[in-house]
Amino acid sequence: MCGIAGIYLKDGENAPDIVSLALFSEQHRGQESCGVSYVKDGRIFLHKGMGLVKEVLHPELLKDFRSNVAIGHVRYPTQGGATLENSQPHLIETLKGPIYSVSSNGDLINYHTLRNEMEKLGVHLSTKNDGELIGKFLVHRIEEAKKDVIRAISEIFTIFQGAYSTVFLTPKMLIGFRDPFGFRPMFFGKIKNGYAITSETCAMDILRAKEVREIKPAEIVIVDKDGVEFINTDVKNLRKGRGHFAHCIFEMIYFARPDSFIFGEYVYKFRKRIGRILASYDDFKPDCVVPVPDSSNFIAQGYAEGSNTPFEMGLIRNHYVGRTFIKPVQSFRDESVKQKFNPLKDFFMGKNVVLVDDSIVRGTTLRKIVRMIRGAGAKEIHIRIGSPPVKFPCYFGIDTPTFEELIANRMEIGDIEKYIEADSLKYFRIEDFKKLVGNIGDFCKACFDGKYPVGNPLDSGIEKLKEIKHSV
Amino acid sequence: MCGIAGIYLKDGENAPDIVSLALFSEQHRGQESCGVSYVKDGRIFLHKGMGLVKEVLHPELLKDFRSNVAIGHVRYPTQGGATLENSQPHLIETLKGPIYSVSSNGDLINYHTLRNEMEKLGVHLSTKNDGELIGKFLVHRIEEAKKDVIRAISEIFTIFQGAYSTVFLTPKMLIGFRDPFGFRPMFFGKIKNGYAITSETCAMDILRAKEVREIKPAEIVIVDKDGVEFINTDVKNLRKGRGHFAHCIFEMIYFARPDSFIFGEYVYKFRKRIGRILASYDDFKPDCVVPVPDSSNFIAQGYAEGSNTPFEMGLIRNHYVGRTFIKPVQSFRDESVKQKFNPLKDFFMGKNVVLVDDSIVRGTTLRKIVRMIRGAGAKEIHIRIGSPPVKFPCYFGIDTPTFEELIANRMEIGDIEKYIEADSLKYFRIEDFKKLVGNIGDFCKACFDGKYPVGNPLDSGIEKLKEIKHSV
Amino acid sequence: MCGIAGIYLKDGENAPDIVSLALFSEQHRGQESCGVSYVKDGRIFLHKGMGLVKEVLHPELLKDFRSNVAIGHVRYPTQGGATLENSQPHLIETLKGPIYSVSSNGDLINYHTLRNEMEKLGVHLSTKNDGELIGKFLVHRIEEAKKDVIRAISEIFTIFQGAYSTVFLTPKMLIGFRDPFGFRPMFFGKIKNGYAITSETCAMDILRAKEVREIKPAEIVIVDKDGVEFINTDVKNLRKGRGHFAHCIFEMIYFARPDSFIFGEYVYKFRKRIGRILASYDDFKPDCVVPVPDSSNFIAQGYAEGSNTPFEMGLIRNHYVGRTFIKPVQSFRDESVKQKFNPLKDFFMGKNVVLVDDSIVRGTTLRKIVRMIRGAGAKEIHIRIGSPPVKFPCYFGIDTPTFEELIANRMEIGDIEKYIEADSLKYFRIEDFKKLVGNIGDFCKACFDGKYPVGNPLDSGIEKLKEIKHSV
Amino acid sequence: MCGIAGIYLKDGENAPDIVSLALFSEQHRGQESCGVSYVKDGRIFLHKGMGLVKEVLHPELLKDFRSNVAIGHVRYPTQGGATLENSQPHLIETLKGPIYSVSSNGDLINYHTLRNEMEKLGVHLSTKNDGELIGKFLVHRIEEAKKDVIRAISEIFTIFQGAYSTVFLTPKMLIGFRDPFGFRPMFFGKIKNGYAITSETCAMDILRAKEVREIKPAEIVIVDKDGVEFINTDVKNLRKGRGHFAHCIFEMIYFARPDSFIFGEYVYKFRKRIGRILASYDDFKPDCVVPVPDSSNFIAQGYAEGSNTPFEMGLIRNHYVGRTFIKPVQSFRDESVKQKFNPLKDFFMGKNVVLVDDSIVRGTTLRKIVRMIRGAGAKEIHIRIGSPPVKFPCYFGIDTPTFEELIANRMEIGDIEKYIEADSLKYFRIEDFKKLVGNIGDFCKACFDGKYPVGNPLDSGIEKLKEIKHSV
Repeated sequence: MCGIAGIYLKDGENAPDIVSLALFSEQHRGQESCGVSYVKDGRIFLHKGMGLVKEVLHPELLKDFRSNVAIGHVRYPTQGGATLENSQPHLIETLKGPIYSVSSNGDLINYHTLRNEMEKLGVHLSTKNDGELIGKFLVHRIEEAKKDVIRAISEIFTIFQGAYSTVFLTPKMLIGFRDPFGFRPMFFGKIKNGYAITSETCAMDILRAKEVREIKPAEIVIVDKDGVEFINTDVKNLRKGRGHFAHCIFEMIYFARPDSFIFGEYVYKFRKRIGRILASYDDFKPDCVVPVPDSSNFIAQGYAEGSNTPFEMGLIRNHYVGRTFIKPVQSFRDESVKQKFNPLKDFFMGKNVVLVDDSIVRGTTLRKIVRMIRGAGAKEIHIRIGSPPVKFPCYFGIDTPTFEELIANRMEIGDIEKYIEADSLKYFRIEDFKKLVGNIGDFCKACFDGKYPVGNPLDSGIEKLKEIKHSV
Repeated sequence: MCGIAGIYLKDGENAPDIVSLALFSEQHRGQESCGVSYVKDGRIFLHKGMGLVKEVLHPELLKDFRSNVAIGHVRYPTQGGATLENSQPHLIETLKGPIYSVSSNGDLINYHTLRNEMEKLGVHLSTKNDGELIGKFLVHRIEEAKKDVIRAISEIFTIFQGAYSTVFLTPKMLIGFRDPFGFRPMFFGKIKNGYAITSETCAMDILRAKEVREIKPAEIVIVDKDGVEFINTDVKNLRKGRGHFAHCIFEMIYFARPDSFIFGEYVYKFRKRIGRILASYDDFKPDCVVPVPDSSNFIAQGYAEGSNTPFEMGLIRNHYVGRTFIKPVQSFRDESVKQKFNPLKDFFMGKNVVLVDDSIVRGTTLRKIVRMIRGAGAKEIHIRIGSPPVKFPCYFGIDTPTFEELIANRMEIGDIEKYIEADSLKYFRIEDFKKLVGNIGDFCKACFDGKYPVGNPLDSGIEKLKEIKHSV
Repeated sequence: MCGIAGIYLKDGENAPDIVSLALFSEQHRGQESCGVSYVKDGRIFLHKGMGLVKEVLHPELLKDFRSNVAIGHVRYPTQGGATLENSQPHLIETLKGPIYSVSSNGDLINYHTLRNEMEKLGVHLSTKNDGELIGKFLVHRIEEAKKDVIRAISEIFTIFQGAYSTVFLTPKMLIGFRDPFGFRPMFFGKIKNGYAITSETCAMDILRAKEVREIKPAEIVIVDKDGVEFINTDVKNLRKGRGHFAHCIFEMIYFARPDSFIFGEYVYKFRKRIGRILASYDDFKPDCVVPVPDSSNFIAQGYAEGSNTPFEMGLIRNHYVGRTFIKPVQSFRDESVKQKFNPLKDFFMGKNVVLVDDSIVRGTTLRKIVRMIRGAGAKEIHIRIGSPPVKFPCYFGIDTPTFEELIANRMEIGDIEKYIEADSLKYFRIEDFKKLVGNIGDFCKACFDGKYPVGNPLDSGIEKLKEIKHSV
Repeated sequence: MCGIAGIYLKDGENAPDIVSLALFSEQHRGQESCGVSYVKDGRIFLHKGMGLVKEVLHPELLKDFRSNVAIGHVRYPTQGGATLENSQPHLIETLKGPIYSVSSNGDLINYHTLRNEMEKLGVHLSTKNDGELIGKFLVHRIEEAKKDVIRAISEIFTIFQGAYSTVFLTPKMLIGFRDPFGFRPMFFGKIKNGYAITSETCAMDILRAKEVREIKPAEIVIVDKDGVEFINTDVKNLRKGRGHFAHCIFEMIYFARPDSFIFGEYVYKFRKRIGRILASYDDFKPDCVVPVPDSSNFIAQGYAEGSNTPFEMGLIRNHYVGRTFIKPVQSFRDESVKQKFNPLKDFFMGKNVVLVDDSIVRGTTLRKIVRMIRGAGAKEIHIRIGSPPVKFPCYFGIDTPTFEELIANRMEIGDIEKYIEADSLKYFRIEDFKKLVGNIGDFCKACFDGKYPVGNPLDSGIEKLKEIKHSV
């Protein structure tokens, strides 16, 4: 998971500043590193660093970055490869100078094949990052074979398999394009004096953008001094009867900000509906519904409304935990979850509690929370999960663990219930997705059902794909 | 506002590590800077820096800080003097080496007088910070006049006017003491292999401390290899019939973490009761109750329960805002509040909303939120505030603005209602505090009623006090 | 003035280390900045910095620079443009990666014209340095027009006017070439396991090189895994009857190290001969001959031998002055020369002294030295200069001042004698150069006689050339 | 070996600047590190660093150091302990602030005993440096026991055994004092608007000081706003019939700058006389006399004059070698001497050479030089050394190696002659010292004869002393 942004101003020089504002609103999509690149005197300048937007792109720096056009990126923490080099945007050097830059959100499943091809052509790749691959492919096409940009991007749509919501910067143009499957969200809007491209609409809100609309799968947007052009490539949809697109349903459940509008729906409404459906599975009367804050707040509220049970914030979250846990000292090794959550004292005593979480990945955190609440006196703890069991890794931009680490891949629901020490455990049922969205065929639910929308990763060997997973 | 911590281990060398864990839990009390000092080979070593605990005291550093005894501090952002020099703990240099260290939470109202006296004695003060003053006074007494520590602290209780919850470190002892008025909280507890001193009980929770109890006003705790000694000084209470203590009521309303137990009460319960009392002032039926997150969550829940109205999280807070706002670009100057809060779309449309906040200081932020919600379609917006009007500056450790900036000092409630563009505005009534706590005489409510518990700052000239305010 | 070096090893990985050793021996040719670049895994890596070789290229760093081929550079301090960016070697970025590097010693007189041409071709120049221009011209020819290296260098010989002793590095080849006029020295030698290219033979000495020979003007040397190839380009000599070459005679008088062999002669012998010729101009009997150390030592010794007068080191030089004078404090403003030289006490008292210097540029330093010696008691001070009056700026790599600052351009010898307060002043006579070297027509003496060997800088406007002077 | 300086201005604020100018002139006494401390607003500020004066104390920094009084130090490179912490000046912290500073040149032989005593008194020593010990002893006496400064320094003269030329700074006074044996030089002079204390007179020259005189052994100089006071303490001379003082004769032979006046004599004259006496030992007629530059230049000139043989600079020294050798690469391991010296080609061919050096310590360098010259064609090489064989380590401030490493301690002269491969080897004869100076009894020659002037280090155990040697 990552977030991108691009700004083109017809008038004004604070595009890098506005990009950083947009990235700040997309910070939940990636806290590991971030950066901004912009055009100045026909060259492109880049600033990126490890850390949060407000740290890396602080105002003192930004005030010296004067340009009418800029792109940016926030990157998600992955275990391997959390280096500045792999961070984005990428600057692309040529003998003509550093005149191209690229940011991409997503993951390519044929990254290694493509990389080999590119290296055979003499192109030097200095990172393990697929954004760089996309950018240098484009530059290579423009520089070497003199093909035009649109044709080069159309080639990408055909050859590059996977998720990519990409912004590309040249000294004269801001270009945005989105893979034909539409895995990740991507939006276009008009702002004062110019245009914006962002990953989510919450970023458009802060820019007070108008006429916000999705950039469609396989669509290209080119902004330059002559205005905006939208190009619908003639790329045939490659999903062969599985529906038109492959929107990531996990964006709706977990990743996107609740105030964003994604894939045709407000995220908070979607989550509340999940909660209501979960409530419909039960006919008991608990004392209260408690979310694991903050990602499950709206699912828990939906449950509370559906079951007419009080919604209570019984777990206090330490918001300073941020992107890295403080490693616990030897004698406090079990406290890593306690650093993040603390139960209210006197609150749980003797209560029957419904505890709502968005998903279970490894199960270890949830077990510690259950124990914590039990230790605080809860009588019964009923776990309700806002998604079906996560049984398959994602190869399209979300950093899920491997097969072996996914608890739902190793255990039946009954065993998971025992493992996490819950009095009962219920998941959202996969067949109920169609109650949530009209066009369920347009979504990727591979993490639940293993039906990967492209490239059949199961056939091409999981081991190879595991490798790919860390090059987000 | 600041937070302190001290750890003494009978056995083990990770006291600096445990201090940092406690400080992490007290991060809400100060995000500007932090530090830890510890004893090693008869000397004291100090590490401090600007930034959050997880950044300044990161595990790689801490693993080299080996000691059985340590103290620490988190500092609140103030406008002036946000420098590393003014940060705490302080290391005190003598010809015998750097063998003392001090951390204090609070504010002295006779700081300038005391400072002048100290300088006359030849003591060099290198900061503007009252923690340093307290520490060097102690060292001066010990070094020069050979008086003993307890006697020196008793002198402090008599001479030093104001708030100070202080930890003091010598090569052999960890010492804690709290001013006779008990302005700020301070706790003592037993942990595995040792003892802990913290500002709040939420820090004790993460340390799994047992037998946690308040350090009483005018009490001294000394921990050394022979164990713990509690000393109740014979300092007469100086409040002359105004009640015994002067606990800061704002700790309960706003500052302390909801899961802490402060001044004899769980903070979240206190806040819920505020909400219920607020609800009792109204007899209408709004569509929903929305908090300004996160500080008002429990007050809003109390209101929701009291009024039997749905509690809704209609404002999404960006938790990455942290301690500094990203300065908005020229064309987005009004967005500083929008960076922090975004209303859910489609949610407010046509609704009568009760919006709950903990207090109003300047009123500018609240006005922007009201406009934002109105822009999102709300029909009526009724503001309910969890505290009485803040009319007087605090001189005991909270960074309130000056008289002129306090909106309640300049306007009647009716005018504030108009200014913030609310359909109605109600404050918690000062006379209802006695419904909240049994011993209201033991609390300082000077920010509401101007009755300062010590030193009559109004008599000694407000101008002088304003100066003091910035030396938190 | 600068110095270059290049090493190619058939076997071994310490080429960067050996380059740094060579540069250390050429440190007198430039103390401002230095650097080394080398091939690793098909890419080129660069390390450069402001400062001396032993500081910038310290052993801890070098031990990690493993390669069988490397080039390096030391740069002379010039007033303008003393920046890291203008330092050498240059790394040249292309879409194929950073796979070329270049170091050059000298100055191009048609730099601006060439730069404009290159920019028209789309080549991005990031510095003001002519080494970069030469390197990128080569890469452009190789990359874009697919011409071969030899043909590209032959083009340079025809188009690029001025001085350039250049080393060029590709992933497979070490290439050296020298301008058709041979302004600056350049040598090739065999070392253990490989080959060396250096500016002076003193660097060959420290490498224990064998079969050392000059790289001839307009000659190209290419070293790769197949061995060494020398190419004599068919470039016609462009000097049109003025002799074959334009060796800088100032290298012999001042710049080169006395233990080097340059332009067919040992430098110390050349200087001693100058001294002997100077002695032949006089028929008096002074008490002693004193050099301005260290550059005039051998000229003074030659004079001492020729006149049978004792050679005495009456001025002590502070060798820590190095490349920058410590700026004198207000009350010691006249001491900048005194920081460098101090006369022996008791020594000059009552003596008739011949003071020998290599040249006079502005005359200000020499005047201060004369006053210093006079203050130390000298009776008569006779100045003898090892070169004719310097009347014209150099545009071929030596940082002389402008016309106006050259004292010999403004004054007759008699007036200079008065200005520097000497009892007598004699210069080496320009017509006596033919006594020093057999082939005086092969030398550039433009700084003395204004006869520039190429490009007639006087015609093309001195102002434009002044600009060039600072792009060394 | 180190150098010190102190400046007191009656008027003006550039004392730190003038100190740095003096230190620059004393740079030959120590190149490892340097620093300056000065009084500002009743406190003392310190700046020091590893490196040369012109690097550490560069003008940009100095212009912000405004004070009328300052002290400074340059430190000699020693193997162990070359750390910033051990560098000087030292700043001494007390509860009254950092109000004292000290710089000392020399070595204490009872350092460990004194250190233990001080630590028993509770004084914290943060370095291994004897300057700190002297300074903290003084502060302890002033702070704790309230004795006055003069009395405290008198105590030092009695208790502290060894060499110390010391400057001590308080907010009001500049104090200089020198051990009763006068091991190291120390001077006092009047400068424009104030007073200077330096290690050598060459520093006085650059300050244009007047009325320069030695600070006598056991003398104290105190400069404050009331002027200068010289105090001759009543300390009895402790040398018991061995002569009055113990001036280091190696200062004359090697360390001091030739243009300085030390221990009653001009250094260059002393060295020339050594050369003339050496010449008197021979009755052959060599072709030339060549010095190992630069330390032996005047000894060689003396020999040349005495023997009427031409003085020739046949070895070129690379002055950029500075304080650390570039570590040679594997294949050039023998070149460390070649990095420093290169023989003139064609010069030595067939010649009988007298090669003059100031001393032989280990013999390894000289052997390499002999081989180098032999390789350059010399027929006979006769080594003449300007001092007797160095057989004993120095414990008074010179970093000589241990017994075992001193070649003259292991071998007879005949064997050394063979080891260094000389055709002949002669040393200056110890009995001829009395021809050089009138008062030879006032000099320490312990490195030649083992007669240590104080504390009988041979009795107290050499092992203990070896340790001391590295705490220069």
